[in-house]
Amino acid sequence: MTHKIAILGASGYTGAELVRLIAEHPNMTIAALAAERKAGQSMAQVFPHLRHMNLPDLCKISEIDFSQIDLCFCALPHKTSQEVIRNLPKTLKIVDLSADFRLRDADEYEKWYGNPHTALDDQQEAVYGLTEFYRDDIRAARLVAGTGCNAATGQYVLRPLISAGVIDLDDIILDMKCAVSGAGRSLKENLLHAELSEGYSAYAVGGTHRHLGEFDQEFSALAGRTVHVQFTPHLIPANRGILATAYVKGDPTSVYETLLNAYENEPFIQMLPFGETPSTHHVRGSNFCHIGVVADRIERRAIVVGALDNLTKGSSGQALQNANLMLGEIETQGLMMAPLFP
Amino acid sequence: MTHKIAILGASGYTGAELVRLIAEHPNMTIAALAAERKAGQSMAQVFPHLRHMNLPDLCKISEIDFSQIDLCFCALPHKTSQEVIRNLPKTLKIVDLSADFRLRDADEYEKWYGNPHTALDDQQEAVYGLTEFYRDDIRAARLVAGTGCNAATGQYVLRPLISAGVIDLDDIILDMKCAVSGAGRSLKENLLHAELSEGYSAYAVGGTHRHLGEFDQEFSALAGRTVHVQFTPHLIPANRGILATAYVKGDPTSVYETLLNAYENEPFIQMLPFGETPSTHHVRGSNFCHIGVVADRIERRAIVVGALDNLTKGSSGQALQNANLMLGEIETQGLMMAPLFP
Amino acid sequence: MTHKIAILGASGYTGAELVRLIAEHPNMTIAALAAERKAGQSMAQVFPHLRHMNLPDLCKISEIDFSQIDLCFCALPHKTSQEVIRNLPKTLKIVDLSADFRLRDADEYEKWYGNPHTALDDQQEAVYGLTEFYRDDIRAARLVAGTGCNAATGQYVLRPLISAGVIDLDDIILDMKCAVSGAGRSLKENLLHAELSEGYSAYAVGGTHRHLGEFDQEFSALAGRTVHVQFTPHLIPANRGILATAYVKGDPTSVYETLLNAYENEPFIQMLPFGETPSTHHVRGSNFCHIGVVADRIERRAIVVGALDNLTKGSSGQALQNANLMLGEIETQGLMMAPLFP
Amino acid sequence: MTHKIAILGASGYTGAELVRLIAEHPNMTIAALAAERKAGQSMAQVFPHLRHMNLPDLCKISEIDFSQIDLCFCALPHKTSQEVIRNLPKTLKIVDLSADFRLRDADEYEKWYGNPHTALDDQQEAVYGLTEFYRDDIRAARLVAGTGCNAATGQYVLRPLISAGVIDLDDIILDMKCAVSGAGRSLKENLLHAELSEGYSAYAVGGTHRHLGEFDQEFSALAGRTVHVQFTPHLIPANRGILATAYVKGDPTSVYETLLNAYENEPFIQMLPFGETPSTHHVRGSNFCHIGVVADRIERRAIVVGALDNLTKGSSGQALQNANLMLGEIETQGLMMAPLFP
Repeated sequence: MTHKIAILGASGYTGAELVRLIAEHPNMTIAALAAERKAGQSMAQVFPHLRHMNLPDLCKISEIDFSQIDLCFCALPHKTSQEVIRNLPKTLKIVDLSADFRLRDADEYEKWYGNPHTALDDQQEAVYGLTEFYRDDIRAARLVAGTGCNAATGQYVLRPLISAGVIDLDDIILDMKCAVSGAGRSLKENLLHAELSEGYSAYAVGGTHRHLGEFDQEFSALAGRTVHVQFTPHLIPANRGILATAYVKGDPTSVYETLLNAYENEPFIQMLPFGETPSTHHVRGSNFCHIGVVADRIERRAIVVGALDNLTKGSSGQALQNANLMLGEIETQGLMMAPLFP
Repeated sequence: MTHKIAILGASGYTGAELVRLIAEHPNMTIAALAAERKAGQSMAQVFPHLRHMNLPDLCKISEIDFSQIDLCFCALPHKTSQEVIRNLPKTLKIVDLSADFRLRDADEYEKWYGNPHTALDDQQEAVYGLTEFYRDDIRAARLVAGTGCNAATGQYVLRPLISAGVIDLDDIILDMKCAVSGAGRSLKENLLHAELSEGYSAYAVGGTHRHLGEFDQEFSALAGRTVHVQFTPHLIPANRGILATAYVKGDPTSVYETLLNAYENEPFIQMLPFGETPSTHHVRGSNFCHIGVVADRIERRAIVVGALDNLTKGSSGQALQNANLMLGEIETQGLMMAPLFP
Repeated sequence: MTHKIAILGASGYTGAELVRLIAEHPNMTIAALAAERKAGQSMAQVFPHLRHMNLPDLCKISEIDFSQIDLCFCALPHKTSQEVIRNLPKTLKIVDLSADFRLRDADEYEKWYGNPHTALDDQQEAVYGLTEFYRDDIRAARLVAGTGCNAATGQYVLRPLISAGVIDLDDIILDMKCAVSGAGRSLKENLLHAELSEGYSAYAVGGTHRHLGEFDQEFSALAGRTVHVQFTPHLIPANRGILATAYVKGDPTSVYETLLNAYENEPFIQMLPFGETPSTHHVRGSNFCHIGVVADRIERRAIVVGALDNLTKGSSGQALQNANLMLGEIETQGLMMAPLFP
Repeated sequence: MTHKIAILGASGYTGAELVRLIAEHPNMTIAALAAERKAGQSMAQVFPHLRHMNLPDLCKISEIDFSQIDLCFCALPHKTSQEVIRNLPKTLKIVDLSADFRLRDADEYEKWYGNPHTALDDQQEAVYGLTEFYRDDIRAARLVAGTGCNAATGQYVLRPLISAGVIDLDDIILDMKCAVSGAGRSLKENLLHAELSEGYSAYAVGGTHRHLGEFDQEFSALAGRTVHVQFTPHLIPANRGILATAYVKGDPTSVYETLLNAYENEPFIQMLPFGETPSTHHVRGSNFCHIGVVADRIERRAIVVGALDNLTKGSSGQALQNANLMLGEIETQGLMMAPLFP
């Protein structure tokens, strides 16, 4: 059986990445692609790399007959996303890639995103989409909220450690190095090749990055107490990739073994041998996340480094993984492609 | 039925690319991976991006039981390749990715490569592996010689034009822009990031690049007379891609229509609308070749631009496409993945 | 004596490059920096790399007292530039970096730029700013029109050959590879890091690039007859640099010697040994232009390759070189810095 | 008066950078350039970007008449450096760029570098070359040991804080992002463009990087007790730059003011406004170091970010700054050039 898929917000990078992935999926077919401002254009005009595919032209959301759709990916900006999803049929399966349904507390949402939430019913219903940790809920969900790409990376390196209580909860530092596609296809001066190439810098320093809302919610829930990490992202001159370097206090061997056990049966989370650390180049274009642990020369301090592709495992790959669960497909279907190297 | 595959020279970029592609192929399984100097290592050590795959460790060629192999990819350096292939079972299907069996004339081989050919029987038997133009021969072949990556690109933009006689044969210029992986995983100063990034230059200028041997052989055979093109490659700070800008003399509309007709039913060759030209970014990681034609402001001059990924369509993807034919598989099997963008 | 300098359009890349260069000039001081939309900001806010300099804040053009200015660099967009310059004091020395005064024929200007020229008196007075070929005129000029960066590169490799009559005038091909800063600090999708990095393509193919107006004007004047070259620019994933590969028909030795003689005493034009070709990486950040000549394997065909930095020798460095002449300074003053490598 | 300069190890990146800088120095002239394996070649062959300069050919060290040299830069690999310097005239002023004379304790040297020190007298005499903190000693020194480029960056962000006692000495994390030229012109697989571009990773994780020897020595001396920081370098796909993100515990305002006071009169150390952080792109090719401080959302935690160019302020620029002091020149002479942006 072939599932009919709609993608809203198909003219952005995560939309294009969804198309790329679904193209390899044996049991999904793309029935509708919406992009309000580019409605009427062919996908090949907007993304020439998809020229070979037989795809519907871009349309407006209002033109889609959702009764013919089995699952809808929503790759719209936050705020727009809730406004659209609020009005979609309540029986439609939805994987949202925006930030709108990640935070369960409406006040926290408003604090981090600056606007009040206007789809509170959907918000309450939404399941947090970090597949490896919410698998059963996702399987049963109608609306799944894809995580932030930084939020996913940070949680993969830290969640099992917080759950197991093997690290000091008051002293966690996440230094993250993010490739530029995470900022989307947006026309900003600092995203220009001439500005970014050959240079790199921190941004949203000091605890102001919105993905902290997710870290706070998830880590505090795991620990049963407030956990606030320090998180500093850096913009790196590369197109895809997130590298999270986590500095934690605890026994390095316990840290390693905790992660090893947690991810033993996970198809997409690959633990490196103790003492090795990953590269973003080795996960690019794939749904894999590589994690390594090293003991610092200072006792009871460990460095945990995780790498994933922000557009795949950090976003559209995660979304497809969740959609597989929601549609009763094998979870890894269409997602086992090897990374592109070099 | 699953075909058992061996890859000789698995520690280079084309070897890794073969593994990446075969991983998606439903009817092939990798039975042996050879790399003389790295024998004994796991593939994950040599190429960490393949860590998630269940692959045999690297071995020596002499350790492979070729009676258990259905098809062997040979991704060794030229000269080594002929020495190895000479001693393989004469019943073994082989796709060679080196330069050793591309030229049918042993003198031409020695002229361009500097060493005499020592596997003349195999050389006579070998079929030139430009799939779209040697499809029937390849289907029946035991030994297929993969083309040079530049040679493939140049032929895709020019072969139909030379066959149809719509361009001046004495005035063809191929200005090519090549990404760095075409030079292989070799430790040379000019391939260092610090030397290549942020700079670009021509190389092998003046008609000294070895792929000219292929152009001369193929174009002259098509035309029934000697055809010598001018070919200047340039090294560009990117990892994958070849962009060929061909300057030809002839009616631009005829040029376009000739190419359009020639590639009408080709799954991997995509003609752009007249007046548009392709980008390497839109074919990266895929087996597609995009071709565009533009009329110059000067009458009867056309510019034909072709783009492909040197490691995929220019090398390992082509090899797999040929292997599919040799094994009776669907030609496009395992090769329809969309490009990686961005 | 210190010359007081104003820069109009100081918030763009050529404006910033002028500041960088003038900072090293012993006899110039920056008295005014104008940028209409950013007036009131400090230069450090707009270009943090200039933070260490003691510079005036950005102002509006109308706020500048031009009676206190010895020379004004005008780095505004074309069309705006003529409107501004038309209203500047007629005694003010001006180096314009826009396209507005490059073409001597008003019809040609309108043909290539789409708008009628509205400062015809200034246009008639303007001297074309390719220093090495208009040195005496520039020394005496009040208004100098900086050349296009591609136009400069193409002329350096071709002018002496056209003057000397050593090449076929009807068969000249200029294949150019341009770095992204040539497009300015403009927010366009194809200039984003995510779109440009790892990909490259041709643009303005077929004789539509505006710098052809300059080639036509200059080459035809040199030859005493109409000369139309073919010119195809390509956008390369690098920040600075232009590489021009010129395909010409003529005796390669004569071609080389003609260039060697022409540039024998030029401080900024460096001829490589016969058979060698340059890299943009070796001129980056400098006012040098490297030129090489290679004989093709086909008789009487030569390839001439030139490299320069579009922002320096192609634009702001050229402008300063001209300003030195106009102000009676040593021509090379402030311009002999070595390229930045790596 | 013009000082005659020799550079030993002129075929590496720091050697070339010294030549680039000295070219702009009004009172220095390059009298000898040594590179053992490339002796006999011209500098233009080894570094074509220096082609325009009138430089002596590369020679062997043994061919230099050191009685004619006023100051010698030694840009050799560690271990080689001490063997060479041991045999130079004891009256010759030397700035060493290797690691050989950075550590005052011979056992520490052997611990970090694996070989015993064989020039102990010179080692005792050497002055540590972090100019801003050893200015008077350097002025009087005969032999100055240039710092590690990471070591310099880390010390600029931390020294004043450790001296002033405003941060917790037991909990300092230095997460560093390093461009590739810091690894030198060495042929290693991970330095290839194809391996590094589009990917990034940590290296020397866990307290194994040799520059920790310098941190331990300097920070412990400042504090009067043992101070061990955590230091994790990351390799970034860029050619020049080091970005140090320091996580410290202390009052952010005190942290900022301490740094502001410390660097108030330093020409090369630029403090950004509180709350802003620097980019490597804004110091590239210059001798400047930009430093910013941000308060974390967690109380009493500050993030200090420093950026410099590893080849200039981190190495050859520092060396020239020290040479200026040793020769009685103005400290900033030849070093005030603006960064290259973009």
